[in-house]
Amino acid sequence: MSEYCLGIDLGGTTTKLGLFRKSGKLIEKWVIPTDSTDNGMHILLDITESINNKLDILGINQKELAGVGIGIPGPVKGGIVTTCVNLGWVNRDVKAELNNLLKLPIEVGNDANVAALGEMWQGSGKGSHNLVMITLGTGVGSGIVIDEKIVSGFFGAAGEIGHMPILHEETTYCACGKQGCLEQVSSATGIVNEMKKKLECTSNLSVLKNIDSLTAKDIFDAARSGDIMASQVIENAGYWLGTALASITSVLDPDVYVIGGGLSNAGDFFVDKVSKYYRQKVLHVCKKTMIKKAELGNDAGIYGAARMVL
Amino acid sequence: MSEYCLGIDLGGTTTKLGLFRKSGKLIEKWVIPTDSTDNGMHILLDITESINNKLDILGINQKELAGVGIGIPGPVKGGIVTTCVNLGWVNRDVKAELNNLLKLPIEVGNDANVAALGEMWQGSGKGSHNLVMITLGTGVGSGIVIDEKIVSGFFGAAGEIGHMPILHEETTYCACGKQGCLEQVSSATGIVNEMKKKLECTSNLSVLKNIDSLTAKDIFDAARSGDIMASQVIENAGYWLGTALASITSVLDPDVYVIGGGLSNAGDFFVDKVSKYYRQKVLHVCKKTMIKKAELGNDAGIYGAARMVL
Repeated sequence: MSEYCLGIDLGGTTTKLGLFRKSGKLIEKWVIPTDSTDNGMHILLDITESINNKLDILGINQKELAGVGIGIPGPVKGGIVTTCVNLGWVNRDVKAELNNLLKLPIEVGNDANVAALGEMWQGSGKGSHNLVMITLGTGVGSGIVIDEKIVSGFFGAAGEIGHMPILHEETTYCACGKQGCLEQVSSATGIVNEMKKKLECTSNLSVLKNIDSLTAKDIFDAARSGDIMASQVIENAGYWLGTALASITSVLDPDVYVIGGGLSNAGDFFVDKVSKYYRQKVLHVCKKTMIKKAELGNDAGIYGAARMVL
Repeated sequence: MSEYCLGIDLGGTTTKLGLFRKSGKLIEKWVIPTDSTDNGMHILLDITESINNKLDILGINQKELAGVGIGIPGPVKGGIVTTCVNLGWVNRDVKAELNNLLKLPIEVGNDANVAALGEMWQGSGKGSHNLVMITLGTGVGSGIVIDEKIVSGFFGAAGEIGHMPILHEETTYCACGKQGCLEQVSSATGIVNEMKKKLECTSNLSVLKNIDSLTAKDIFDAARSGDIMASQVIENAGYWLGTALASITSVLDPDVYVIGGGLSNAGDFFVDKVSKYYRQKVLHVCKKTMIKKAELGNDAGIYGAARMVL
């Protein structure tokens, strides 16, 4: 019987790989560069070679592997990647190609969804069956896991909660072309833009007035040290994200929310604000939904990818 | 091999039953009264007797049944009904009790969720695997089906989209105790309340000024015949419901939305408005999501209940 499974987190510049026991124990992880030249035609061959080498070194027979899962930074449907700009891929049947190369069961998923599955398996969502993982970075992404399976959506857009229409008075445009998307206030980019708007319209003092290229981290730091305008921007970001989670609960009522991504490094400070507004806005019976920080960090992708084949 | 399945839609005053071929063909449906006296202790016995009689009459052996599904007007978790005021039930293990009486596999679900499954199986969502059914009546309810299975939620609150926090400026209270819930504008009750507010604050003419006990149907009729204020109220109800569906798509991106319940009898008039605003508010890639009227009417419950056991 197979004892191991292997997870791959394919990124635009590096590819992370992890070999796991089926119990969820990470045996070894390693990284190889992603060669996206020639429309990314070398990527799957490089991965295959790296896996075979590693198995040789560890003295593990390929037959001991239950399969290989791979997370891709783009939309995936039925194992096929329609377009992935970072990798130069168009309509690649990754499932069939990798199966052909490795002669093993292959599962393919979108990276945000795969990370959610990883947190469910061995991260802060361990023990749950229905989980929503929010990734706060340049945008607001999410991965939805229902009944321990990833939800991809009819058009591959499930979990695109950054574009939830939530700000009904917003006049500026989101990168998606719509107005009033969640990530216009609650992403790193949104927080910076909202802060800039505030700084432009006021003569009030702020420690941020003298910073040239403002980052979300600067704003969090300023808020934490008591800057009033920065505090308002962070409070607002937490308010809208908490409201969005309350909306998601009215649809899915998940076991747990897991918050990851760069902004989650602001720690309990931000997660506490999100939780506060969530509890104000959600149906009474759901006030105790757990909202936790992600635990696996950058490894969530390899964990989730490996979990897909079990 | 079993050839049939049976679905029960248990209501506060009547219980509908339907015998189906496993292919989905309805063989016979019938109705018995629901006896909710003595804390509803006779209900499951009455159902058992009625099923056994019907099978006798039709000359069908119980062994030919794959199982019996039942939809309940209240929250259900793991086959157990925690509280159902209409039936007088508290903590009834319906799955175990009915299995004991009928000696057949039993599945139990909440009625709104079960109706969604019915529409997926043999209604306007036929052929889909992921579906959201919206029920527009006194409130705004929904049933969520993912991967052909009902999503109930951790606290049994999945699909409670009537309480999605969507009106951020609302000052009046929803029956749930919160402010700004979807059903405050888009349910029959919400439409009547919004109309009354408008009529109180204006000296403008409206055909509705002289109606004593205003109903949602009166308002729809007035809107259809060109009454300006009624049209505004209906437009507003459609705007917020369309926006809510766009939010749901950012989470689940379902194959199809099915709209049922009393208000859906307003026909394409209202569904067209909801669709219009949905397409304005949703992520570009999802503009073509199907939004359809429900087809099974009051039979959705027996269809979905029967489908649960397949």
